[in-house]
Amino acid sequence: MLALAKTKPGPGADLLRLEVPRIAPDELLVKVERASICGSDLPIYNWSAWAPTRLKLPTVFGHEFCGTVAETGPATRDFKKGDFISVESHIYCGLCAQCRNGQRHVCRDLRIIGIDTAGGFGEYARVPARCAWKHKDRSLAQVGSLLEPIGNAVYAALCEEVVGRSVLVLGCGPQGLFAISAAKAGGAKPVIAVEGAPFRMRLAKKMGADVVLSPADPDVLKKIERLTEGGADAVLEMSGAPAAVALGLKAVRSGGRLSAFGIPPRELSVDWANDVVFKGVRIMGIAGREVFKTWYTTDALLRSKALDPRPVVTHSFPLKRFKQGFAVMNAKAKNCGKVVFEIGAAR
Amino acid sequence: MLALAKTKPGPGADLLRLEVPRIAPDELLVKVERASICGSDLPIYNWSAWAPTRLKLPTVFGHEFCGTVAETGPATRDFKKGDFISVESHIYCGLCAQCRNGQRHVCRDLRIIGIDTAGGFGEYARVPARCAWKHKDRSLAQVGSLLEPIGNAVYAALCEEVVGRSVLVLGCGPQGLFAISAAKAGGAKPVIAVEGAPFRMRLAKKMGADVVLSPADPDVLKKIERLTEGGADAVLEMSGAPAAVALGLKAVRSGGRLSAFGIPPRELSVDWANDVVFKGVRIMGIAGREVFKTWYTTDALLRSKALDPRPVVTHSFPLKRFKQGFAVMNAKAKNCGKVVFEIGAAR
Amino acid sequence: MLALAKTKPGPGADLLRLEVPRIAPDELLVKVERASICGSDLPIYNWSAWAPTRLKLPTVFGHEFCGTVAETGPATRDFKKGDFISVESHIYCGLCAQCRNGQRHVCRDLRIIGIDTAGGFGEYARVPARCAWKHKDRSLAQVGSLLEPIGNAVYAALCEEVVGRSVLVLGCGPQGLFAISAAKAGGAKPVIAVEGAPFRMRLAKKMGADVVLSPADPDVLKKIERLTEGGADAVLEMSGAPAAVALGLKAVRSGGRLSAFGIPPRELSVDWANDVVFKGVRIMGIAGREVFKTWYTTDALLRSKALDPRPVVTHSFPLKRFKQGFAVMNAKAKNCGKVVFEIGAAR
Amino acid sequence: MLALAKTKPGPGADLLRLEVPRIAPDELLVKVERASICGSDLPIYNWSAWAPTRLKLPTVFGHEFCGTVAETGPATRDFKKGDFISVESHIYCGLCAQCRNGQRHVCRDLRIIGIDTAGGFGEYARVPARCAWKHKDRSLAQVGSLLEPIGNAVYAALCEEVVGRSVLVLGCGPQGLFAISAAKAGGAKPVIAVEGAPFRMRLAKKMGADVVLSPADPDVLKKIERLTEGGADAVLEMSGAPAAVALGLKAVRSGGRLSAFGIPPRELSVDWANDVVFKGVRIMGIAGREVFKTWYTTDALLRSKALDPRPVVTHSFPLKRFKQGFAVMNAKAKNCGKVVFEIGAAR
Repeated sequence: MLALAKTKPGPGADLLRLEVPRIAPDELLVKVERASICGSDLPIYNWSAWAPTRLKLPTVFGHEFCGTVAETGPATRDFKKGDFISVESHIYCGLCAQCRNGQRHVCRDLRIIGIDTAGGFGEYARVPARCAWKHKDRSLAQVGSLLEPIGNAVYAALCEEVVGRSVLVLGCGPQGLFAISAAKAGGAKPVIAVEGAPFRMRLAKKMGADVVLSPADPDVLKKIERLTEGGADAVLEMSGAPAAVALGLKAVRSGGRLSAFGIPPRELSVDWANDVVFKGVRIMGIAGREVFKTWYTTDALLRSKALDPRPVVTHSFPLKRFKQGFAVMNAKAKNCGKVVFEIGAAR
Repeated sequence: MLALAKTKPGPGADLLRLEVPRIAPDELLVKVERASICGSDLPIYNWSAWAPTRLKLPTVFGHEFCGTVAETGPATRDFKKGDFISVESHIYCGLCAQCRNGQRHVCRDLRIIGIDTAGGFGEYARVPARCAWKHKDRSLAQVGSLLEPIGNAVYAALCEEVVGRSVLVLGCGPQGLFAISAAKAGGAKPVIAVEGAPFRMRLAKKMGADVVLSPADPDVLKKIERLTEGGADAVLEMSGAPAAVALGLKAVRSGGRLSAFGIPPRELSVDWANDVVFKGVRIMGIAGREVFKTWYTTDALLRSKALDPRPVVTHSFPLKRFKQGFAVMNAKAKNCGKVVFEIGAAR
Repeated sequence: MLALAKTKPGPGADLLRLEVPRIAPDELLVKVERASICGSDLPIYNWSAWAPTRLKLPTVFGHEFCGTVAETGPATRDFKKGDFISVESHIYCGLCAQCRNGQRHVCRDLRIIGIDTAGGFGEYARVPARCAWKHKDRSLAQVGSLLEPIGNAVYAALCEEVVGRSVLVLGCGPQGLFAISAAKAGGAKPVIAVEGAPFRMRLAKKMGADVVLSPADPDVLKKIERLTEGGADAVLEMSGAPAAVALGLKAVRSGGRLSAFGIPPRELSVDWANDVVFKGVRIMGIAGREVFKTWYTTDALLRSKALDPRPVVTHSFPLKRFKQGFAVMNAKAKNCGKVVFEIGAAR
Repeated sequence: MLALAKTKPGPGADLLRLEVPRIAPDELLVKVERASICGSDLPIYNWSAWAPTRLKLPTVFGHEFCGTVAETGPATRDFKKGDFISVESHIYCGLCAQCRNGQRHVCRDLRIIGIDTAGGFGEYARVPARCAWKHKDRSLAQVGSLLEPIGNAVYAALCEEVVGRSVLVLGCGPQGLFAISAAKAGGAKPVIAVEGAPFRMRLAKKMGADVVLSPADPDVLKKIERLTEGGADAVLEMSGAPAAVALGLKAVRSGGRLSAFGIPPRELSVDWANDVVFKGVRIMGIAGREVFKTWYTTDALLRSKALDPRPVVTHSFPLKRFKQGFAVMNAKAKNCGKVVFEIGAAR
C-alpha cells in the first residue's frame, strides 16, 4: 500500500510503498478514504517542538481519518466488512479509573494514533475496534475525517450549556471555526470571534460568528465587554497563543467559563489572583473529545446540518501531492481552513 | 462605641471611641459579639500589598463577625431585635445578572464589608439585611464569626462531590484546616494535607487529615501519587504560595479538579499545555461562598458536628488586646490557627 | 380604573370600575399594557376544578402581564417611573431555604399573583418589586405579557441540555408551542410534537416541529420510537392529559428525561416499576420558571429571535371584550393559540 | 460442579451436579466463593410475580456473587487466573447509545445474569469480562458478593449530593439498610428511616439512622416534616410498597429529589399535579448501578470503612442448605438482613 511516513529526523516526509498492516484480534483493518491534516501534524512534518522527543521513527502518521472496514479481528464485536467508520484517535485502555468513569479521553494509559502508533495517512490503517465510530450510512462520507476535530470543538463549546449565552472564540483555525458553529448550534448568542488573518476572518463570518474582531485592535477587550455586557459567559481558547489566553482570562465574565483547548508553545504567566480566584471562573482543559458522548452530539449536529463543516474544507489533495497540503498549512498567510487528503474514497 | 480603625497609612491600627453607626432603611445594626481575623486583614493592619491602594481611611475594618440585631431598618423583612446573626461579607447588589443567576458571590458590583465599607471590629456594625444569616438559636454562638471563613472552605471542598474520592489540601492555615474537615464531612478518602509549619501539621491531623506531608519533602509529589493511585481526584489550593499552585497542578489527576482559593502575591508561571489542556482538568476559582447555598451546608455541618471548628480557634482576645492578636497572626512560626476577638458576647 | 374581577361564585367575570391599588413599601404600581389568558385562568372564569376552593372573592385575576412602572415603594431599589417590566407571577418570600438555594419558584411560602393576590387584568396592578423583570428597552413590548408563560416552556425544555438530542412535545397549546421553539433554539433535533387539534398541529409546524403526530394515531408510539431510534431523549409533557403522561412515560428512552408541566385533572395510574425504575428515567416537575435564571435565557432567546412567539398569539382583544377572549379559549375546537388583552399599551 | 437450578415451574429449586460451564472468547470462568440472595431471587424461587413469564428453564440462578478467575477467554484483557472479582449483574452490550453515553446500566440490549443467562448459585459461573470488577486484593473477600447490591444503594443515595442535607429512607431491607449507610457516608444529616419490622428497625439504627419511624405510626408524615423542617431534601424509596411511594412523594420537600428503587407489585396511583408538578421535584429511576462509576465509589466506601455492611449479613449458609436461606428470606417476620451462601471461599 501507499503511505506517508516519517522515516528520519528533519523536515518533510516520504511517500512509501508498505505492506498492508496486520491487525491484532481486537482491531479493524480500515481502507482509508479520507484523512485530514491536524495542527499537531505540523510539528511532525516540520520536525519541530515536541515531535522529535516523542515519535519513534519510522512511522506512518495522521490521526484524522475515515474509511471502510476491510477486515475484522476475531475479538471484535459489532463490525463487518464494508462498514463505514470514523476514527477516535485517542486509544484508551478501557480499564483504568478514568476510562471507567466517563473520562476515556484522559485515559491513564492514553496513546494517540499517528503519534504513538501507526497512523492514517495511508491506503490502509489498523485501529482498535473500540476506537471506531460506525456510521449508520454513508451520508457523512465527504466529511468523515472531520468528526474527530469537530468533536474537539463541540466538546470545547458545549461542555457547559450555552443556550442564550454569549460565547467568545479565540482563534479561527479549523478548530475555532468549528467551535463557532458548534456554539451557534447550541443556541449561543452572540458568538464573537477573534482572529487576525483576513481569510479566516471571512470564514468565521461564514461559519456564523455574529462579530469578528482582530486581536490587533487595541480596543478588542473593550469591544468584547460592550458586546457581552461586561464579559463573555464562555470563552473558547482555540489558538494556543499566549496573548489569546491572557485576553480570554480578562474577557470572561466573573463566574463564567473558559475552555482551554489551544496548546501554547511554552509556559504562560497567569494573574491567578485576579483572573482565576477573585473572578470565580471555571477553566476547563479540553483534551480531545468525550468518548463517545461528544461523538453522538457531533454526529447529530452534522446529520441535522446544524453544523455544516464544508466551508472550512478549503483544500483537498490526493496523497501523492502531500507537499502541497503541508505547504498550505505551513504558510504564514493562513489562507486555509482544513486540508483533506482524498485517499481511497469509494464511489 | 469602641472600635478598631485604620486611621492613617502605615502599620498598626487604633482603638477609638466612635459613635454607633446609623443604619440605612435596608440595613441592620448589629451588636457585635465575636469577630475573627482573616488572612486578608493582615495587609490592612500591616499596610502592605493591595491594602494601601484599595482602602479609604479612616475606616473600621474586620469582616468575619457575628452578633445580635440591635435595630432593624424599615425596609428590612424577617429580622427583629435580638436575633443572632452571622454576616456574609460580600455585599452583593441582588440585581445584576450574576446575582440573579445563583452567583451572588461574584456580583458585578461587589463590595466587601470591612474593606470597601466599615467593618466589624467594633461594638456595633451596620450590615445590609440581605447579608445577614439568621441563626435559629444560639447554639453556634461560640463559632458565629467563623461561618464566613468556613464557608470558603466548604465551597472550595464541596463545589464538586468528593464522596469516596481522594482530596489533597495545600496549606493548613485556618482555611486549609477547615477544608480538611469539610472534605471529610463530604466523605472524601483519603484526605492528604501539605503544610510546613509543625504546629499546623498537628492541627491538620486533628482536623482529620489521613496523611500530612511537608512541602519541603523532595518526594512530596511521588508520595501524593502513591497515596492517590496516580493523582488526587480533587486538589484544594488554600495557601496562595506559587509553589503550592504548581504542586497542585502536577498532583491533580487527569480529569480531576483543582479549587483555586489561595491568593498568590504575584503572577504565576503555568504549564498550560501539560497541566491544564492535556490533563483535561477543571480549575475552579473560589471567591467567597455561594450565597446562601454554601451557608446552608455550613450550618448543617456545624450543627451536626460533622465539622467541628473549635480546634482551629487557638487564640482569643478582648478587642483592646488587638496588638497581640495581630502579632500572633504575623509571626513567622505560624503557631496559630484562627484568632478571635471577644467583643460583646452575650452570656 | 377598569379591571376584570371575579365577584361571586359561578361562571363569568365582571368588568368593574375600581380604585387604583395602593402599594406597600416594597411594591411597584404597574400601569398594565398587555395581559394574556393562561390556561389556569379558565377554571377561575368558569368557576370549576380547584378555583372555588382556592380563590377569595371578590378579586381581580390574571397573572401574565407587562406594563410600565407608575409608582415605586420607598423600600424598592433599581426601579423608576416609566421602566417597562414583565411580571414573575410567583411571589416568593426570598427568605426560606428554597429561595436561598436557587429554587424561588418553589418557595415554601409561595403565593401566585392573580390567584392568591389581586392580578393584572386591569389598568393598574401592584407587584412586589422583587417579582418585576426590568426590560432594557421596549423592544419586547408587543410580547411582554408572554415572558412568564414562555419561561415555563423554556424551563421545561432546557432544564437539561438538548443540543443534538431528540425531544418529544406532548400537547400544543401555547405552552407546548413555545416549548417546541425553545427546544429548537437549544439545538434539539428532531423535535416531534403530538397534538390532536388541526389548528394547533399547523401552529406546531410553524413553530418548528420536525414532525407532528396525532394522539389518535394508533401507531403514535411506534412512530415516535422509529423517529427517535428507540425513544426520545427528552419528553416535555405540556398537556396534563392522563393519556399524554402515559404516552410520555412509554416514549421516553431508558435513561432519558420527562419534564412534567401539564396539570392532570385527577390522580394518575403509573407503571412505576417498568416506566420509572427499570427505565432509569428522570422525571422533572416543572412549577413555573427558575427565578431569574430562566428569565435571562428567555430574554436572550426573544431578543436574538431564536424564539419568535408571535405566531402563537392568535387573538387579541381590548379588555372590555373579555367574554370573546374566554369564549375562544373555552371552545372545544381549540382554534387558538394565546389570547392577549390590549389594556393600556403605550404608543 | 454443584449448582442451584430452577428446573421446572413451581416453588423451590434443585441442587444439581452439572458440567462446569464453557466460556466464550470474551468471558471469564469464575470459581464462585460467595453468593447472596437478592429480593428478586424470591419470585424465581417461589415462582411468582414476573418470574414465570421471564425465565427459561432449566437455569442456574443468582446474580450477586464473587470469586476467583479460573479461566480467561482469548478475547479478554486485563484478567488472569486467580484474580479476585465481583460481578456486575447487568450484561450491557457496550455498543448502544446508552452504553456509549455513560448509561450502561440501562443498556438498550440489557440482560441480567441469573435471570436472562445462567447465574452464580454454583461452584462455577461464566461472566463477560466486561462485567467483572477486579479487586486490588482480597481485603473485601468476605463481602465480595455484596458490592452489586450495595452499588444499588450507593447509586440511589448519592446520585445527587447529600452532604448536609436530610435524607429519608423508606424500607429497611438490605438495600434500605445499605442506603442508610451510604447516605451517612456522603454526609447526610439527619438520616431518617421508615420500617415496620422490629428486627430491621434495630438494624437501621445500627447502620446509622438518626431516627427510625414505623410506617404504622399515624403521625409518621408529621414527624418527618418536623425532623426535616418541612420535607426531606432526598427520599430513597427502597421498598416498592405502594404506600411507601405515596408517603415518599408527600414527604419530599418542594424542589427535592426522590430516588425510585423499590419495585411495586402493580401500577400505582400518583397525585401528579400536587406531588410532582407543583412541588417541582425530581424523580430518579434507579435501575442497578452506574457501571462503573458507582463501583468506584462503593469500593472506596468499603475500603475506608465509611460503609461497613457486615451488620446487614445476618445469615450465612453453605449452598446445600439453600432451603434454609430462602425460608429465612420468605418469612413474614423479616428477622433477617442479607443471606449469603458460602460456596467455594478460598482460605
